[in-house]
Amino acid sequence: MSGTTRAPGSPRDHGLPGGPRLAEFRTALDAARGSVFTRAERIPLDALDRWSADPESGTIRHVSGKFFSVQGIDVTISTDGTTRRWHQPIISQPEIGVLGILVKEFDGVPHFLMQLKDEPGNINGIQLSPTVQATRSNYTRVHGGHAVPYLDYFLERARHRVIADVRQSEQGDWFLLKRNRNMIVETRGDVPPREGFHWLTIHQIHDLLDLDDMVNMDARSVLSCLPLWEFVRASAGDERVNSVVDAWSKTGHRGLHDTAELLSWITDARTRTEVDVRNAPLDRLPHWRRGTEIISHESDRFFDVIGVRVEAGGREVAGWDQPMVAARHVGLVAFLVTYADGVPHVLVGIRAEPGFADVAELGPTVQCVPAEHERGHPEWPPFLDTVLSAPADRVLYDTTLSEEGGRFFHTRNRYLIVEVDSDVDHPGFRWMTLHQLAELIHHSHYINVQARTLLACMATLATTRETGSAGPRTPEPATTAGQGGGV
Amino acid sequence: MSGTTRAPGSPRDHGLPGGPRLAEFRTALDAARGSVFTRAERIPLDALDRWSADPESGTIRHVSGKFFSVQGIDVTISTDGTTRRWHQPIISQPEIGVLGILVKEFDGVPHFLMQLKDEPGNINGIQLSPTVQATRSNYTRVHGGHAVPYLDYFLERARHRVIADVRQSEQGDWFLLKRNRNMIVETRGDVPPREGFHWLTIHQIHDLLDLDDMVNMDARSVLSCLPLWEFVRASAGDERVNSVVDAWSKTGHRGLHDTAELLSWITDARTRTEVDVRNAPLDRLPHWRRGTEIISHESDRFFDVIGVRVEAGGREVAGWDQPMVAARHVGLVAFLVTYADGVPHVLVGIRAEPGFADVAELGPTVQCVPAEHERGHPEWPPFLDTVLSAPADRVLYDTTLSEEGGRFFHTRNRYLIVEVDSDVDHPGFRWMTLHQLAELIHHSHYINVQARTLLACMATLATTRETGSAGPRTPEPATTAGQGGGV
Repeated sequence: MSGTTRAPGSPRDHGLPGGPRLAEFRTALDAARGSVFTRAERIPLDALDRWSADPESGTIRHVSGKFFSVQGIDVTISTDGTTRRWHQPIISQPEIGVLGILVKEFDGVPHFLMQLKDEPGNINGIQLSPTVQATRSNYTRVHGGHAVPYLDYFLERARHRVIADVRQSEQGDWFLLKRNRNMIVETRGDVPPREGFHWLTIHQIHDLLDLDDMVNMDARSVLSCLPLWEFVRASAGDERVNSVVDAWSKTGHRGLHDTAELLSWITDARTRTEVDVRNAPLDRLPHWRRGTEIISHESDRFFDVIGVRVEAGGREVAGWDQPMVAARHVGLVAFLVTYADGVPHVLVGIRAEPGFADVAELGPTVQCVPAEHERGHPEWPPFLDTVLSAPADRVLYDTTLSEEGGRFFHTRNRYLIVEVDSDVDHPGFRWMTLHQLAELIHHSHYINVQARTLLACMATLATTRETGSAGPRTPEPATTAGQGGGV
Repeated sequence: MSGTTRAPGSPRDHGLPGGPRLAEFRTALDAARGSVFTRAERIPLDALDRWSADPESGTIRHVSGKFFSVQGIDVTISTDGTTRRWHQPIISQPEIGVLGILVKEFDGVPHFLMQLKDEPGNINGIQLSPTVQATRSNYTRVHGGHAVPYLDYFLERARHRVIADVRQSEQGDWFLLKRNRNMIVETRGDVPPREGFHWLTIHQIHDLLDLDDMVNMDARSVLSCLPLWEFVRASAGDERVNSVVDAWSKTGHRGLHDTAELLSWITDARTRTEVDVRNAPLDRLPHWRRGTEIISHESDRFFDVIGVRVEAGGREVAGWDQPMVAARHVGLVAFLVTYADGVPHVLVGIRAEPGFADVAELGPTVQCVPAEHERGHPEWPPFLDTVLSAPADRVLYDTTLSEEGGRFFHTRNRYLIVEVDSDVDHPGFRWMTLHQLAELIHHSHYINVQARTLLACMATLATTRETGSAGPRTPEPATTAGQGGGV
């Protein structure tokens, strides 16, 4: 963790009854490391057991036809007569799985049932995962098979309260049409305990979100769909925290742009931009090298497709082989945040990625791999300098987090939230309030997975911190806020 | 018009300054019939000038590659292991056009700029159309060409107020991936007058919606996106009308289901249902006859693909040939409406149609062609009997309206809104409040075009009627409303 490092062993006592404290959680985590583990060894793509390349298309598939495949695509994205075209490998996994978090109140405090799970791509072993990560065949039970623990809460919703249930995209640069159903369900019934699952408060989860590579991508995605004002208010006794949560809540705040105007901006981008994605042979993609070991770009940028042999403990299956995507460098993902008329706004971009189901989605202010860009080059990302040169006291969040360890190998992004004084305008971006984003997140295909992670991280700003004495880690309204001035 | 017929020549005076009254409008309409006309003559498909069938696929295309094509598809829709499969012709027109209505206040009263337009498929000549119906090449100006009147208001939105801007689907049974951008833009500037365009109040438009085949499908679709409470309240002086509008407005009313629950129902349908659409040769579709004259189903149900030769007055082009879809029978589209806790709810279905961009959309309570169903058969549509046997005083709306006359030939549906006392449950349907639907209509792919027409028609219930003395044509809260009892 960069910036505001807190040692993993320094949890705080929220004084909340009913839930395990973070100290207990750490003990449980240490204990689990002995029984739940995944060891991944890199092996040549061509040596993967039960995977083979189609002789015609080069597509790498499992012999069962299940799981996912790696294929080649030929992408053309046109906007107002400007056209970009490239070829790339991509993971094809068009089916929709379930990512679910179960919620239950203990002594009036909502707790979230989180799983300790290791995935082969994780850089550090176990990470905090949702209650349920289920594939479509799991939840439709087409193939029968081992039941996924707690899945019934998400299938039989009539007896529970649905808080969120929305299909969300995942990395559109790396996944073709991948979406998962992000669900939060609250139950009042007794929930049987199971090894490897833990009830945590939102404050405990927020503490863990401050640690590098601790909360996994699926958990962050689901947590971003949580109505913060309901769950933080319910468990926080701190008036200052509640005032922050109020500032993010749905009512009583107008933004710099009204919602009709923002929706029009999105509609405009989605109609003016055309994304054309065609299949292309994976072993003959221009500018990509298909070796027996890996597939890589001739520039050594972007990512490699690699082979991995997995040995697993605490799982149904003792081991397997699979291809994975491995990013070449750590990425950088950031929101700029500012106060306008006392209301926090974030600077939202809009991105067309080849794997999206609906052309373009809202994204972070910055989403790039700095090591792959040249400063001063026209393609140096807008606002990257603002983020990189921000003084320490304007950096509200700075943590490096892992992307989904079932498909991505040691692939990480540094997530930053940086406060600025000026609500500077840029044609490709819009300042949006958090409650405007919170409304859109309940509908599919609006907010990309990187921006969803940032929203989950931003929620941590509403939590009273243990370190320091300034109370909630929240940007104070800038006294000189207003139009004008550069960022 | 069935039921509450009002002669075309009996407009009422709303006492509104600034706008033409309906009498003036009728005079203008009569005058326009001389200069704006389209004569359509049926000719054999194989005789269409500048259209030809692809020798391999049978797809019927224009020689320029522009406009649209008619192709064959092979459809499989699966839900929870139940699979339906069929083949059919379908119109392919994947590009997104603009349907826009311009709004401007005259003496404090909002007026809508409507165009008098004849389309070759119209059964009765001129219908009321949006200010703008533009194709993508019109608005991106890729091909240059004749400017579309008033289009700039919808392209240069910065100087105006955007009220709605959302891509909406059209008939998913007849169109493959057809969507139009539905826009409502308000201007404060002077708007130059043009022949064939008229400013009408929402009340005048509502009067016209009571007439058979008078307001075209595109206009109804755009009008369904209008925030009713803002525009009816602004121009109605009647307290009773305002109370109806209040009942539909966004705030202060809980529905039988909360919105999170309804969104979950939609997400569930969209993940459990799989729609697989593949190209199939148009001239060899099972159960369809491809003749030289028309393409028709061997059962004489559904629709024909026919050829039409068009002679046009008041248009850029004096004439052209084109294929069209012609329904075999008049369809029936209906909402059931009931009061629950004093709040009006409509019974919403959910439909997977092969041409939809996102699996399934919300639809009417009944959407079918009664002549093609057999009473007593298991596929007799749910709630059709309720609609057909409703006593006259529970029928709040009953008008036969045309579908889009540029693609559909003499293709019409009878639209009904029927009040019932009981909020009966059915697993495939949900009772939703009008404000819940009004929130969803600002996002793409939620509400199908038939349900949008019904929402536009339902808005007429908030308008004081000229005939009768009961004030607003609104369902009164049923005194015995509540659970239980069959419909």
